[in-house]
Amino acid sequence: MTDDVAQAVSGGERAGRRRERRAQATRGGGPRQLSFAQVPNGYRPIEVMSADQIEAIHLASLKVLAEIGIEVMHEESRGRLKAAGADVDEGTHRVRFDPALVEEKIRTIPGSFRMRARNRAYDIEIGGNQMIFAATGGPAFAHDLDRGRRPGNYADMCDYIRLVQSLNVIHQEGGCPVEPTDLPAETRHLDFYQAALTLTDKTWQCWALGAYRVEDALNMIGIVYGLRREQMAEQPVTLTVINSNSPLKLDIPMGEALTAMSKAGQPIALTPFTLSGAMSPVTIAGALTQQNAEALAMMTLTQIVRAGAPVLYGGFTSNVDMRTGSPAFGTPEYTKAALASGQLARRYGVPFRSSNVNASNCVDVQAAYESGMSLWGSIMGGVNLIEHAAGWLEGGLTASFEKLVLDAEMLQMMREFLRPIAVDADELAVETIAEVGPGGHFFGTGHTLARFEHAFYEPMLSDWRNFETWSESGAKTGTERANAIWKDLLKTYQQPELDPALAEALADYVARRKIEINRGDY
Amino acid sequence: MTDDVAQAVSGGERAGRRRERRAQATRGGGPRQLSFAQVPNGYRPIEVMSADQIEAIHLASLKVLAEIGIEVMHEESRGRLKAAGADVDEGTHRVRFDPALVEEKIRTIPGSFRMRARNRAYDIEIGGNQMIFAATGGPAFAHDLDRGRRPGNYADMCDYIRLVQSLNVIHQEGGCPVEPTDLPAETRHLDFYQAALTLTDKTWQCWALGAYRVEDALNMIGIVYGLRREQMAEQPVTLTVINSNSPLKLDIPMGEALTAMSKAGQPIALTPFTLSGAMSPVTIAGALTQQNAEALAMMTLTQIVRAGAPVLYGGFTSNVDMRTGSPAFGTPEYTKAALASGQLARRYGVPFRSSNVNASNCVDVQAAYESGMSLWGSIMGGVNLIEHAAGWLEGGLTASFEKLVLDAEMLQMMREFLRPIAVDADELAVETIAEVGPGGHFFGTGHTLARFEHAFYEPMLSDWRNFETWSESGAKTGTERANAIWKDLLKTYQQPELDPALAEALADYVARRKIEINRGDY
Repeated sequence: MTDDVAQAVSGGERAGRRRERRAQATRGGGPRQLSFAQVPNGYRPIEVMSADQIEAIHLASLKVLAEIGIEVMHEESRGRLKAAGADVDEGTHRVRFDPALVEEKIRTIPGSFRMRARNRAYDIEIGGNQMIFAATGGPAFAHDLDRGRRPGNYADMCDYIRLVQSLNVIHQEGGCPVEPTDLPAETRHLDFYQAALTLTDKTWQCWALGAYRVEDALNMIGIVYGLRREQMAEQPVTLTVINSNSPLKLDIPMGEALTAMSKAGQPIALTPFTLSGAMSPVTIAGALTQQNAEALAMMTLTQIVRAGAPVLYGGFTSNVDMRTGSPAFGTPEYTKAALASGQLARRYGVPFRSSNVNASNCVDVQAAYESGMSLWGSIMGGVNLIEHAAGWLEGGLTASFEKLVLDAEMLQMMREFLRPIAVDADELAVETIAEVGPGGHFFGTGHTLARFEHAFYEPMLSDWRNFETWSESGAKTGTERANAIWKDLLKTYQQPELDPALAEALADYVARRKIEINRGDY
Repeated sequence: MTDDVAQAVSGGERAGRRRERRAQATRGGGPRQLSFAQVPNGYRPIEVMSADQIEAIHLASLKVLAEIGIEVMHEESRGRLKAAGADVDEGTHRVRFDPALVEEKIRTIPGSFRMRARNRAYDIEIGGNQMIFAATGGPAFAHDLDRGRRPGNYADMCDYIRLVQSLNVIHQEGGCPVEPTDLPAETRHLDFYQAALTLTDKTWQCWALGAYRVEDALNMIGIVYGLRREQMAEQPVTLTVINSNSPLKLDIPMGEALTAMSKAGQPIALTPFTLSGAMSPVTIAGALTQQNAEALAMMTLTQIVRAGAPVLYGGFTSNVDMRTGSPAFGTPEYTKAALASGQLARRYGVPFRSSNVNASNCVDVQAAYESGMSLWGSIMGGVNLIEHAAGWLEGGLTASFEKLVLDAEMLQMMREFLRPIAVDADELAVETIAEVGPGGHFFGTGHTLARFEHAFYEPMLSDWRNFETWSESGAKTGTERANAIWKDLLKTYQQPELDPALAEALADYVARRKIEINRGDY
């Protein structure tokens, strides 16, 4: 870190540490954990590419946009792009972009933005050197050690949201932890939104499947937060992810959602899903070129819809197992692509979204080391939003209850890692070293006694007892301990208060919209 | 990475990748793995401290050496230090160092050195941007899933050395994987050395317990390699670790071993064992100050013994659980201390030693994520030698057979992570993106077909099959798969050939020395 950053950060550092860590001691019930906070990332990102190489990717992706173009299936979006000067072929829906158009439009993307939560203590900042961790969103299955793997359902979804609320290291709900497949597909977004507005008071992500699911989210948030649309545009209240249909395609529901979100000034993590070897070239540089082309096209479109609309540059380039076609995550290639994606995002001055992913089928060592590779790629890539930061398993097919706890521990460790080492006369402790002298020990010194309570990170999941004590208490693995922790969190969960009148208004909205949607009135 | 480094590395990069990865396909038997290689680290290290803060640690540690000093119990070492100008109190054995003496002496430490293996294909370079991975050394217990935890014994030690030989990602045996407690303590080093010289032809580490265990190592290597002492000083053949007795103490066996190793021109990883809160101050800056003072004192002594003797700056600062006193490893504090230690080592131009450590009692998610934190701290700290890179469990009390395989996979992933992304017209693949077009897929393109076999890292341990296939084949966790892998490695292990006359001469030496030692003639 530079001297400037070190000085800037270390000033309020130790006071902050004491304050933040107090939660470990004073929390009424449930497992020990850090308190809610955003920790700035003061370390210089890892650069896996030279500036020349980044420029080569940039130029190659502009060439892709100019010569090959993107298939935009959403008519309204094509109209907007044409009006802004893009070359639109209405027969093939192919849209080609002049490099100057792209460069001009993306200039209005803000470098950072704040999001407003129901509980203002959970307001967050995304961009600059600030990052947030969002829980997993979208899995079709739920899994825990006791009940095994089952199709996503409403009860699991609600429990998972309760855990997201309870785990302080998670800043944001991630867009429905597990699909409630026991509810009708056309209206289940309403049930999710209602749960997200009542079971947690953190920010949460809405669904990017068509305009009406975005409108419902904004309407429901408007009811509970008491905000009009213009106010929400000033202080974004929800966020969504839009994955282009790689290669080079944007479908109608996503075009609609992109338009609705940007119109409303709500942030989108624009994320091409470029699996190298399948939906993008088998080379990392080629996959990044395609990712960058798709991201630039979507970024351009958002700024045409509304100049200054907040977006994130999403990187999701990973690779497939070339012998079987299976997607792989948290691979060395994934880590490098994440770091390179961070470099590209910074090239454009746009906040960067990455993920905490793995391809394991259970909460085992593979899940942990693949997640570790993902987290390091994200955080040292200068990430601003980690999607699926906690809970994702099985390449995203499953939301795991134990993985949620495992990831929370890994995220807490990364957060502590980002806390700079304080260096001053007190911390250097030369007098204490003199006091103890050769062969002594430091347990009883005044220097130690004054600091021992909050000196080090205290884990939630790790067990540091010796082998004998650990064996006598059941020789539980980390995954088994995680099982006990999420149950404890659910037991001590407290639903955030909500004015009964607002809760009723919200329920009325949901009931009315279900009737409307069921009769075909989206 | 800088443009220069990127260009320098990418030239031979892809040819190297094809060559190296061929081993995956052509290996006769055993699990798929990368071939033996050293991969340079071209990434800029993570700096957790500013240059000013590093200088503050440096100056504080010089103050510790000048005012408090180190207790040196080895008389011969005190004599050497006194002759070189240090202030020696023969009553207390306290040695104080003038900063100028330290700064002058450590100037002769080489920035890198090569080590000679029995099989010259396993020769290695330590220093600069080259790194090696050494297997775990020193545990008292062995563990595997089938047999559980048992006291270290000769049979387990031999099996472990066979696995170290078989795992290509491990560059060096780490100084006896598990103590053979079924053999007499005074002579078991001879049995270990004999096993290390016959079961593997990679380099291995000797024991730093007194001069005679160093002399035996050099004598036995001399027999097998056919080298005289002067030749070994030119091309080091073994390495050892010396941990000062923190705080601020160097005992007699270590003083003897340090002297014997440096006299012989053999490298030493000088590693203070500074557990913050117990054997060093409760602050990371304080623990690093003490670590640095102890390291500088030992570095100075080695250069007084022999100017130019190769050494490494060892960083092992971690913390204890302040509620129980249990040591913790792979913590956020450990990671930061490793990165800061790398900065200190580079400050002195001395190769850097770090470790892959964890405090888990079994091969579970905790073992994986703590190891991950250690590895990232080491590698992004610019490490040159990772001790305990594979196999360490339970805070170093146990050598685990499954952890060995888990770590080998994690090390392979880190090695692949260090391989730069190639960027040129072929890799950017714009023509292929045009050929596939919107909505297509890349499986069948010429670009993919020409590259798919060696495009991506192929794991040894990770299972990327889908949930159904994985379930049908037994739903094995990563740890259970690791169990099958080490058994397969042992089954396909091939003992490296050794001239029977040399093997006999070696056996004769061991037999003779056992008789001598048993009659008290060390």
